[in-house]
Amino acid sequence: MSNPDFDQKIDRVGTRCAKWDDMEAAYGVSGADGGLAMWIADMDFRPPAAVQRAVEATAAHGIYGYPGAHQPYLDAIQWWMKNRHGWDIETGWILTTAGLVNAVAMALNAYTKQGDGVIVMSPVYHAFGRVIRAGGRELVELPLAQQDDGYVMDWSRWEMMLTGNERLMILCSPHNPGGRVWTEEELRQVADFCTRHDLILVSDDIHCDLVYPGHKHHMIADLVPDISDRLVTLTAATKTFNIAGAHIGNVIIANDDLRQRFKGALMAAAISPGLFGMDMVTAAYSPEGAEWVDALMAYLDENRRLFDDGINAIPGLRSMPLQATYLSWVDFSGTGMSRAEFTARVEQGARIAANHGPTFGQGGNDFLRFNIATPRSNVVEAVTRLQAAFADLQ
Amino acid sequence: MSNPDFDQKIDRVGTRCAKWDDMEAAYGVSGADGGLAMWIADMDFRPPAAVQRAVEATAAHGIYGYPGAHQPYLDAIQWWMKNRHGWDIETGWILTTAGLVNAVAMALNAYTKQGDGVIVMSPVYHAFGRVIRAGGRELVELPLAQQDDGYVMDWSRWEMMLTGNERLMILCSPHNPGGRVWTEEELRQVADFCTRHDLILVSDDIHCDLVYPGHKHHMIADLVPDISDRLVTLTAATKTFNIAGAHIGNVIIANDDLRQRFKGALMAAAISPGLFGMDMVTAAYSPEGAEWVDALMAYLDENRRLFDDGINAIPGLRSMPLQATYLSWVDFSGTGMSRAEFTARVEQGARIAANHGPTFGQGGNDFLRFNIATPRSNVVEAVTRLQAAFADLQ
Repeated sequence: MSNPDFDQKIDRVGTRCAKWDDMEAAYGVSGADGGLAMWIADMDFRPPAAVQRAVEATAAHGIYGYPGAHQPYLDAIQWWMKNRHGWDIETGWILTTAGLVNAVAMALNAYTKQGDGVIVMSPVYHAFGRVIRAGGRELVELPLAQQDDGYVMDWSRWEMMLTGNERLMILCSPHNPGGRVWTEEELRQVADFCTRHDLILVSDDIHCDLVYPGHKHHMIADLVPDISDRLVTLTAATKTFNIAGAHIGNVIIANDDLRQRFKGALMAAAISPGLFGMDMVTAAYSPEGAEWVDALMAYLDENRRLFDDGINAIPGLRSMPLQATYLSWVDFSGTGMSRAEFTARVEQGARIAANHGPTFGQGGNDFLRFNIATPRSNVVEAVTRLQAAFADLQ
Repeated sequence: MSNPDFDQKIDRVGTRCAKWDDMEAAYGVSGADGGLAMWIADMDFRPPAAVQRAVEATAAHGIYGYPGAHQPYLDAIQWWMKNRHGWDIETGWILTTAGLVNAVAMALNAYTKQGDGVIVMSPVYHAFGRVIRAGGRELVELPLAQQDDGYVMDWSRWEMMLTGNERLMILCSPHNPGGRVWTEEELRQVADFCTRHDLILVSDDIHCDLVYPGHKHHMIADLVPDISDRLVTLTAATKTFNIAGAHIGNVIIANDDLRQRFKGALMAAAISPGLFGMDMVTAAYSPEGAEWVDALMAYLDENRRLFDDGINAIPGLRSMPLQATYLSWVDFSGTGMSRAEFTARVEQGARIAANHGPTFGQGGNDFLRFNIATPRSNVVEAVTRLQAAFADLQ
């Protein structure tokens, strides 16, 4: 594999991409006019060349009918889980959704009913709350505690918060935002909590491949096999390989009964893998894809260092140390500014679009989430602009 | 536009397509071994060159992240409805699903609850029944009456069949299988029936572009605007342009309340348009796409004539005259054979995979559905094989 050129700036303005083309409507920051897109979680990098080749081959064949012959796609997922995560799965355990938020929605349909409580650890990926509420379920936010090196679970507090109406817990592992890679001990505590409270556990491991050196992601299915009768694992190639447009997610369920119920939800919603998504995933979960991810993480590691150093040099700003993900979670509370003011300085001053903290639920009020998966020159530029926008604090 | 070469045989075996690669598992007929795929409803033709160019352009750009900037896509749908169907819609009326079966599923979620009766006119596209049952709704089959020139609605009988539990009716317009293009009078009767019985009407117009000369498709929304407060129209570029792998459907709802409820169902299931689907639809709904469809229908018209002539020359077989669609509905009852026998002669004798009639519900028992959207040489070969397989009837 030739080394991927993550430094290459690829103009995405006008390419029908949400990140750059919908930014002005969402944040008042124009990509065409020098604004920097650091919000929605996709990367400004091309995927591995193998993925592009697969797409081009399908494009060249020219017939884009109903996809079939799924076995190589399932085999690729199995290979990836074994080779990158040491997790042995059977291809028969794999179901396909139209992305991972759709997977969460299908899990809610499969395992809960209207009015049931669904637990998340806040602040957390905003789409969970949206889909829980849209499905008429009760959103139960268990607030993460903040320590110097990031979020930790707060079991003694959480034990007292449950009402008995809770049926399902969504674990975000690694966590978004904040980028914690949960330890073995923490994951065992999650499993224990779900068992004691008779909760289905939906483990969203979409960031499992995006872990920085010095940390190790554990598949809870592999670590605590005892909870297979209540465990649904979600992974995806879309986040890892920057192919979110494929709208495809992997759902891996070892337990027959749980899997049949999930299948029933998929059938009731008529969800099946699309042609390009299947081809991209098959190409991505490969030795070439693995090499590319290693190169990606080395690149992001340096982006992370640059961004954190730059942010933490601004008095009152603090970037949470990322153990995984390319989503930097920056705390502005030390500035003493109102949310309106620090947001205006970022959007109108620095002309950067970053996700607003409150959309991630409780505990997000003083934060913005910055996507650093962009050429390093953009990260340097962002730091320069932010330092200028908050120069009066120096 | 250069004239599309529908005669070109494109080898689809081994291209991860359901039609040719999943045929052996489904019917015991091997594509690699000379079997003919005449089942699942996609075509063995390339889509308009504009579609392939759009896919290749997206492929070449190389970043396949979250799609955005949907307006050109919505504008293209609006343009098509106006220019091909004389139907004025607002782009704000359009919602996107992951294909039209998913659209039916979302409609069930939006407008009905578990146990509610959902009406179809049988025999009809098999996926309706599957998704109705999977969603825990009651499938209510109103049997179409069979006349010489195809199926007709049987209102006097149907009026007596309702129990009051019915909440929603699915109209398949044009009808699949059987290929009826419903007349203005028939559509007015449908509207009247839904109004009197207080039913939501989901009109699946996925075959609306595939109408043969001498027939005219009417959008019921345009014909009977009075029922807009109970009408949901489904259309798609996927069937018309042979891009089923895109998993994308148009849902068009003029009424605000109905549209908000459908949006709620989409949000609860987290469904949104995928990147390649959006690009393909935008390219297809164009003047070039329109020219291509005209050429396609001229080609299919001759396939239809050849197939019908060949089938109707076999004593005991009768092909229902198609007014629309490329799905020939062949009645084997005149042979006096059991279903097992005529099916074996088609599959093992003629080595042709055709959809089994009973999957389409009541009235389908004596039928097989043949997909004639394939190069003419395949149609000729199919007729030759079928005449040989039933030669003892001559």
